[in-house]
Amino acid sequence: MQSNKIGTVQVYTGDGKGKTTAALGQAFRASGHGFKIIVIQFMKGQIKYGEIEAVKHIPGFTIEQYGLPTFVDKDNPSKEDVELAKKGFERAKEVILSNEYDMVVLDEANVALDYCLIKLDDVIDLIKNKPPNLELILTGRYAPDEILEIADLVTKTNEIKHHYQKGIQAREGIEY
Amino acid sequence: MQSNKIGTVQVYTGDGKGKTTAALGQAFRASGHGFKIIVIQFMKGQIKYGEIEAVKHIPGFTIEQYGLPTFVDKDNPSKEDVELAKKGFERAKEVILSNEYDMVVLDEANVALDYCLIKLDDVIDLIKNKPPNLELILTGRYAPDEILEIADLVTKTNEIKHHYQKGIQAREGIEY
Repeated sequence: MQSNKIGTVQVYTGDGKGKTTAALGQAFRASGHGFKIIVIQFMKGQIKYGEIEAVKHIPGFTIEQYGLPTFVDKDNPSKEDVELAKKGFERAKEVILSNEYDMVVLDEANVALDYCLIKLDDVIDLIKNKPPNLELILTGRYAPDEILEIADLVTKTNEIKHHYQKGIQAREGIEY
Repeated sequence: MQSNKIGTVQVYTGDGKGKTTAALGQAFRASGHGFKIIVIQFMKGQIKYGEIEAVKHIPGFTIEQYGLPTFVDKDNPSKEDVELAKKGFERAKEVILSNEYDMVVLDEANVALDYCLIKLDDVIDLIKNKPPNLELILTGRYAPDEILEIADLVTKTNEIKHHYQKGIQAREGIEY
């Protein structure tokens, strides 16, 4: 953990493309300054995301996934979905409170909150107790107001135009 | 250059944080799938951006800067600012038309256009002539309507809340 830094809470939300990639790019940039970084991905798993391969090249930069490759049924999440999200949150707590990291990204945490896979009070508590130097980044649509309230920086991405509308499906290297 | 891909034109614009980092994260992700990538940064130079260091770890991923470390005076850009932007555009043309890259990012190209350091007609022409498989990404505030028009995907980032407002200055690993 580097000292003499001011760590803030960044949130990337909204319906536009670029929330996860903004966090990944932020982590990539920070790695160039020797930050110790972990990205904890909620609700994502196994699918061959490019970042999982790319990160292997960069010292001090880790990505862990706590989800299944399938979509979560919001009205009826599987037991495994709930278990994995719980595990992800416990891991988030561990790394944040360890004071060993310079940057922690909780990818899709806002969606996990919206799907009630993790608890808002727990996340708020964790944010309040983060080490002052730690840069904490939460991504995902549907960020609850309470999270926006407590964040230092909130960027909302708006989808002005999307090629999915033109019938192009999710592509390797772009969407995953 | 990989085949069997559909390359689109992505634009990240707006006043929110996360435009350059979204493009960097996109490139980082794509690198995990073996894409050959170049990021050409307009109006940026010499300042120790983390991405310049981080990229050294990743095979097939290059970043080049075509700008000065100082801000460009919009009403009266220096001869060197104009020269460097011109060089950057020539390089962009070269790499795009070479058909050797899978992804080209023209970072801050929208601002260079807004500052009249590069010509809109030239950029539109280049976009129209890009190889079909190439993923082309333009970032920066003030994207002209003609660029939005020709793009496949447009994400506008809105700054809902920013810690600069709380008096925190640009920080190593975060803003650069």
